[in-house]
Amino acid sequence: MKVSDPIPATIEWVDGRIRLIDQRRLPGELVVLDVTTVDELCEAIATMAVRGAPALGVAGAMGIALAATTGVPTDEAAARLVATRPTAVNLAWGVEQALRADDPVAEARRLAADDVSRNRRLGANGAPLIPVGARVYTHCNSGALACAGYGSGLGIVRAAHETGRRPTVWVGETRPALQGARLTAWELDRLGIPATLVADVMSASLMAAGEVDCVVVGADRIAANGDVANKVGTYGLAVLARHHGVPFYVGAPTSTIDLGCPDGSAIPIERRQGAEVTRLGGIDIAPPGFAAENRAFDVTPEALVTAIVTEAGVASAPYGRTLAALVPPPSSA
Amino acid sequence: MKVSDPIPATIEWVDGRIRLIDQRRLPGELVVLDVTTVDELCEAIATMAVRGAPALGVAGAMGIALAATTGVPTDEAAARLVATRPTAVNLAWGVEQALRADDPVAEARRLAADDVSRNRRLGANGAPLIPVGARVYTHCNSGALACAGYGSGLGIVRAAHETGRRPTVWVGETRPALQGARLTAWELDRLGIPATLVADVMSASLMAAGEVDCVVVGADRIAANGDVANKVGTYGLAVLARHHGVPFYVGAPTSTIDLGCPDGSAIPIERRQGAEVTRLGGIDIAPPGFAAENRAFDVTPEALVTAIVTEAGVASAPYGRTLAALVPPPSSA
Repeated sequence: MKVSDPIPATIEWVDGRIRLIDQRRLPGELVVLDVTTVDELCEAIATMAVRGAPALGVAGAMGIALAATTGVPTDEAAARLVATRPTAVNLAWGVEQALRADDPVAEARRLAADDVSRNRRLGANGAPLIPVGARVYTHCNSGALACAGYGSGLGIVRAAHETGRRPTVWVGETRPALQGARLTAWELDRLGIPATLVADVMSASLMAAGEVDCVVVGADRIAANGDVANKVGTYGLAVLARHHGVPFYVGAPTSTIDLGCPDGSAIPIERRQGAEVTRLGGIDIAPPGFAAENRAFDVTPEALVTAIVTEAGVASAPYGRTLAALVPPPSSA
Repeated sequence: MKVSDPIPATIEWVDGRIRLIDQRRLPGELVVLDVTTVDELCEAIATMAVRGAPALGVAGAMGIALAATTGVPTDEAAARLVATRPTAVNLAWGVEQALRADDPVAEARRLAADDVSRNRRLGANGAPLIPVGARVYTHCNSGALACAGYGSGLGIVRAAHETGRRPTVWVGETRPALQGARLTAWELDRLGIPATLVADVMSASLMAAGEVDCVVVGADRIAANGDVANKVGTYGLAVLARHHGVPFYVGAPTSTIDLGCPDGSAIPIERRQGAEVTRLGGIDIAPPGFAAENRAFDVTPEALVTAIVTEAGVASAPYGRTLAALVPPPSSA
């Protein structure tokens, strides 16, 4: 990452420990958390101090590096790390990469650097899809904070901005955990990209008013047929985009594509605590004890996806063929 | 309202003043606010201490009663009251009813009692649309708190419950002001109707999973052609419902139908402060100074509405004919 990057590294290996931005504290405070044990890392992942599929890939690899250097059996660490969050395939992918390596520390550091350069290529591949002056709607956070750096879905918007396309962004706040309001808004603010926050429910009327030129999101897992698991709300946006004739783009590194997963029905969907819905900033927003359902992700059928942008190229339907052509064979991964 | 009603009166005329439930304080505290001046009432309406189209109709009438009894020119009071919230037509309707009456106090009290009995008829008309054991999705609050009592949209669910249809309810939290989480959840809890809170963005995946049998909402203004203005997010729900083959029902008293408004494009949409989106419970959820757009309502085209349920009967397309047949002529209003 360049020294001048306005967004510090999301996750790094520093002096034998993992240093990460504590995303639970944003946008109020920019706090760095030093993680020294696998237990601490599992906790940081489960509570979303670090989150975002590509960032979780790096976290998984660094978790194995931490296990290897602190005398924890790596197989045991791998199982615990992968169990923290079931939907993002990158977590298991990063763990696997580090397990296979002779030097897990070097591999984890390589994956972090590699993630940033992949995302820059991804952004460059996607930027031409963004019309000059486009009003982009995005959901959740697929920016630098979701990766080791730069961003995947939001990296496309960033690359469009850097190449003079002057995009503006509608930021869906992304209840319940507010990654849009807290993280994407914070990044766009730092990057100087004009943006406006909205409640998630306003997306449909913005589209109906002709105020959205495209939707750009990230992904937590993409099945072999092109079905996309991403933050809950993505699927509804895709239906609305189709209804209004708005293109729907997904930006994700090829490590997010799971060719072993035939379609979206095979992707495990994480259920999180109802308290994320019923409480906000320590305040009860519903009656005490009221039931809440909190599925953290949903699946967008490939038929609603205009294109999937990766560092290796842009795929469009039929995804069964185009995605397989982009994913490197396991031996070179 | 029956003495046994588990939900106290939303708004009443008591001893020469307006007594209303302060809905800003729910669900944490059930606090009653005594309003003694037109100024205080305008403030209570603008800050949503009292909200909901039918309740605003009663509030408007009681505001004229307050003006008449406190020596404020009623024309001046009318203009100020109507300007507080532009979308709900009932507010202007209630003001007009009281202005025309010889005794504004008696008229305001009559409208409050009449609203409850209309809503009970509305509920009885709508209950047969709810299949036994139906899983109903609702948005915002169209319950007793949105009316003088009983409820309009949610009154249909209540009537279904009271007639043994055993509905269960998905409550969309309804950002930014959280009327679903705060008010609808509170009402359903008091009524003993099984319900589960969800973030608004989960509606699409619930429908995709076949877990929603119908959507039921209220309305703030219904145009002559059947286009429905309601809380922002309603339109997106209607698009999603159509995509998934889920019936979409609107419950509203005939006072919500504005035959003078040809279609949705003529309905004014209130824009509220961005701070409702960027702050929550006194906490900033976005970076300081970040822009936010906050359109409080949206318009659902009549083509997406399965039926409109009123106290005078159930209308379906072509609404241009069926609605006009339900609305009483002005002289009898």
